[in-house]
Formats: sequence, structure tokens, C-alpha cells
Amino acid sequence: MDSRTNHQYRLAARPVGLPQPTDWQYAEETVTEPADGQLLVEVAYLSLDPAMRGWMNEGKSYIRPVEIGEVMRAGGVGRVIASRHPGFAVGDHVSGTLGVQEYCLSDGRGLTKVDPALAPLPVYLSVLGMPGMTAYFGLLDIGRPEAGQTVVVSGAAGAVGSVVGQIAKLKGCRVIGIAGGEAKCRLVVEEFGFDACIDYKSQDVRKALREVAPDGVDVYFDNVGGDILDAVLTRLARGARIVICGAISQYNATEPKGPANYMSLLVNRASMTGMVVFDYADRYAEAAAEMSGWLAAGKLRSLEDVVDGGVEAFPDTLLKLFKGENTGKLVLKVAGG
Amino acid sequence: MDSRTNHQYRLAARPVGLPQPTDWQYAEETVTEPADGQLLVEVAYLSLDPAMRGWMNEGKSYIRPVEIGEVMRAGGVGRVIASRHPGFAVGDHVSGTLGVQEYCLSDGRGLTKVDPALAPLPVYLSVLGMPGMTAYFGLLDIGRPEAGQTVVVSGAAGAVGSVVGQIAKLKGCRVIGIAGGEAKCRLVVEEFGFDACIDYKSQDVRKALREVAPDGVDVYFDNVGGDILDAVLTRLARGARIVICGAISQYNATEPKGPANYMSLLVNRASMTGMVVFDYADRYAEAAAEMSGWLAAGKLRSLEDVVDGGVEAFPDTLLKLFKGENTGKLVLKVAGG
Repeated sequence: MDSRTNHQYRLAARPVGLPQPTDWQYAEETVTEPADGQLLVEVAYLSLDPAMRGWMNEGKSYIRPVEIGEVMRAGGVGRVIASRHPGFAVGDHVSGTLGVQEYCLSDGRGLTKVDPALAPLPVYLSVLGMPGMTAYFGLLDIGRPEAGQTVVVSGAAGAVGSVVGQIAKLKGCRVIGIAGGEAKCRLVVEEFGFDACIDYKSQDVRKALREVAPDGVDVYFDNVGGDILDAVLTRLARGARIVICGAISQYNATEPKGPANYMSLLVNRASMTGMVVFDYADRYAEAAAEMSGWLAAGKLRSLEDVVDGGVEAFPDTLLKLFKGENTGKLVLKVAGG
Repeated sequence: MDSRTNHQYRLAARPVGLPQPTDWQYAEETVTEPADGQLLVEVAYLSLDPAMRGWMNEGKSYIRPVEIGEVMRAGGVGRVIASRHPGFAVGDHVSGTLGVQEYCLSDGRGLTKVDPALAPLPVYLSVLGMPGMTAYFGLLDIGRPEAGQTVVVSGAAGAVGSVVGQIAKLKGCRVIGIAGGEAKCRLVVEEFGFDACIDYKSQDVRKALREVAPDGVDVYFDNVGGDILDAVLTRLARGARIVICGAISQYNATEPKGPANYMSLLVNRASMTGMVVFDYADRYAEAAAEMSGWLAAGKLRSLEDVVDGGVEAFPDTLLKLFKGENTGKLVLKVAGG
């Protein structure tokens, strides 16, 4: 193998608010040959996720922070180009935590083989990856929707929200999305099959909910927090379940805002429960099998927003998430795949 | 029966912030003889509860608001002094929603006979009344503490909190109270048997929790909301359950504050669930039986703060709750009992 250069983004500083260019260090190093028990992966696609913002902060969370100077953590899919690991052969495709870089030297832990003949590689970062698993377990295990109930999903045009709504429809629910802008709302209804979608940029969410969910909200899958969570709290049905999956509106806030209307939980005997997808790792296969079936049957649609920018485009592409500029799962194309 | 005068407090205006004297109308009317199917109760003790503040507000809640001009809603115990109801005889003692008044004419619905030989009448407004039922079902059904786990209770010297902590101790938990002032904290530890009590007036609750609950909080029974809820959120153990029973710090706030640290629910896979005691009405007898046994065995202590002021003292006595001046269940003595 020729000597190759690995371009990477490392964390240079902990951001205050939105990540700035100075929070990143664009580094390069020579790719090392795998030692015994290692393999080398050429990164094809990287997953860009709202959760990345949290990983950049110091302090206790559900996963350790990325250290200053460390390659930024990122999920990805790629191709094995060298291997001295008995479980992986050159030409295999794998998904796992590959990092924001062009090549990943790995001992194989946490890598899963994927089959590009069954689904395009970006789908393994979307419906068949973390966003899909998050949607599946968050909705079904925590939200526990019943046929005929009303399910509301924020970030409805995003990687997780679009899958939550589609699964809720498959389970016989009435599904309302919340998204930003007319184009996204149209997509949510026309492509993802939601019953309605509220445009939080042009509509009063609380009033709109009164119209489209007159009997109240049984399950709210929250990806955004902030004012939208507060608006939905005013419209809960008795016994409602709120799934706290994320709070993208708050991740860059220096003074996060709590849901002022949380006492609606008492009035409506409702619950608000946090979920972290990693807790379901031993059931990913079960979810992937069911969702692969839905994909194959045309009952579930996976939508990726692929930016063909190479690893150097990472900092700017990440910001699209926080500006609400992506539609579907945001993926950065790094190599040919 | 001689002609008697019934003194009452009726709601004159909906309060903004703390209830003012002008929010009340002190009225009197002549007591009417019971018609067929009715009974007349002489009110002995009235229960003064934080929830009363919510009943004075307009708008949808778990119970309809008290209307302007209506006798203020209040639970109470009293003695039947006239009856044309087959289920109640003169001399019976009853508990139920009697209202802030000296005499209550009733059709018997919602009244329960109580036995003053088994427990003093105020106990039927305390451990054997709504506060006790709230503590019992909120802790055991929603909090689901396990032996060895850490349970934290705010309003620990109050009617509900003091019972929550004692039940948690009976279930083998480590129990930490939060209360205001040294005297209350001493009571919580020495009389109610909690393992520790944090004085939120003189201590930093977050730091104090780090010391007394180093492994985190498994169950938090919240009566207060506000900054204390936010502090406890930073110390949750994995899988913690927060019972939202009340938010006395917020009831008089014109701009209620939400828990800014609610994303700790996600990090810790925790839940926050609202409870309303009325949902457990069909199981009150079961709880009362178990708690009567604990009372009789000296395993549970009921503490009432009885103000012997007559019905006219109602407005001032109610304010004691919001100033944190009561210790144990606040009860207003109206007649001899």
C-alpha cells in the first residue's frame, strides 16, 4: 500500500454557542499500516448529528466528551482497504464510530458489517443507523403509541423525526409533524405521509395544534425543546407520554430554557422520559430487520441529504443542522464509497 | 333546630400572585334545614392545601376552578347535626369537600364516615386524608422506590413530604429531605426519621446533595418546583423517577419558571411524571388500612399544625403555606369537633 495522507478534524477548543472555525484543527497525518488484529477503513460517508454539539462540551453526559486535540467523534460507513483482523476482509463495508477523518485504523470493536447490495451506504447512517434506531425504540418503547392515538413529532423533516412519524403511521396513529418552512412541511406530508405538518416559522404552534389535534396529544416525540416543547405541553391528552430525544434549539444556548409549562404533566397525569439509543444496542438487529422489511416493501422511506464535500467541508456542513438547512439525514460524503 | 348563621369565605376575585384580602368575600347566610335526602354538617376542621391556589385560577386543570362568588372549596371533617339522609345519622363524623364555611348542607355525595375513636379528627385531613393518600400513591405507584435506593423529598416537613419520607424509610430506602430552616430540618430528621435534611435557606442544595447522596437520586418526590427541582435534576441517578406532585414555589408566580436542567432526564434515562391523587380514589381504603396499621404500630407519625382561629382566620392562615410557616399538615379549627 502506498503512503496515504489522512485528513482529519480535531477538536481545538470547546465552543461557546455555535461551533466556530477556531474550535477546529484541520490536521493531517500519514496513514499507518494495520498491526496484527487491526484493520484500516477508508471512510465513505460520515453521519452529522445534533448530538455532536453535546459531545464537544465538558462534563458528565451519557457519553464521555471529545477531548481537546482528539479527532472529532462521528459515526460513518466505509470500506476495509487493509486488514490483519480475522473478522474483516479487504472489500468489506462497515459502519461504526469512524471519526471525522478519511481513514480509520480500528481494532474492529464497535464495527458492524453492512451490505451495500441491500441498501445504499448512506441508509446505514439513516433509517438503518442511529437515527432509525432512535426513532424506533424512542417511539415504540417510551412513547408506546396505540392505534388511533395522536402522535406529534418535532424536527419532522429530520433524520429521526421523519422515521418516527412513518412508524407511528404504520402503527395506525394520527401523526402531526412540526417543521420549519413550507418546503419541509410539504415533504413531511407528501413524502413521509404524515397527516399534517405545522410550520413553526409561520404558524403559532399552540393554536395550530388546537386545530389539527383537537383531542390533545397522546405522544410527543421531542427533538427540539424550547418554545415548541412548551407549546405542545399546553395540548397534552390525559396520560400523555413525552419522549425527550433531543433539544436542538437549546444545544448552542448559553442559558438553556426549561419548559415553563411542565406542570401540565401533573394536570394531565403525563410523563416526560429521556432516552439514549445506545441503551438498546442489544436490540438493534431486531429493529434493523423490521425496518429493512418496511424499506423493501416501500412502507418506509429513508431520505438522506448528502453533501459531497469531502472531510474538509465538515465544519460548515455541521452548521446546516443548527440552522435547520438539512432535509432528512445529513451525511457528508468523504470518499467514493 | 334554632336558626343558625353560617359564616363563609367566597371567592371575590381571581388573585394575581399571592391571594390578597380583596380576593375574598366574607359572607354570612342563615343555615337551611336539610331537605329529604340531605344532611347538615357542622364543620370541625378545614384542610388548608397548596392546591387551593390553583383552584382559584381560571382555565383547564385537573379540577374545575372555583367560580367567582362561590364558597371556596376546601376539604374538611365535621359532625352531622341534622339528617334526612338514610346513610348518615346525627352524631356521625364525616370527611369530604365541606368548603370554607361553618356549616355544610350536603346530599352525602363524596362524604366518608370517619371514626374519631380510631384517630383524632385532624388526622383524617392528614395521614388518613388527601396528603397521606398523595404521599402513598405518588411514592409507591409513580416513584417505585426499591430498598437501598436514595429517595429525596422536598417540602419534607409538610403534610405530604413528611409522609413520603416515612413510607420510603419503611420500604428500606435512604431518605433525604429538603426543607426551609433549621427547626424544620431538625424535625424531619428527629421526628420523622429521615437520614438527612438539607436546609435550602442556608445551604446550596446541589452541593449538599453531592455530599448526602453521592450515588445520585433514584426517586425525587417534588412538592416545590423552581430552583430546588433544577438542583435535584443535576444529581439524578441512572433511571431516576421524578414524581411531580406540586410546585408551591411557582403557584403565585406570574411568570412560572421551567426546569432548565430537564435534559438531565435524557442523560440519565430518567422520567418526570405528574400525579393527581383523585385518580386513586378507588384504592384509598387500601392505603388507609395500611397507614392506620403503621400509625397504630407507632411506625408512622402524623403531625398537624392546627390553627384555632375559626373560619374568619382562613385568608391569613392560608398564606402560612406560601410563606413556609407551617410544619406538618396545616389545619384550621372551625368548631369543637
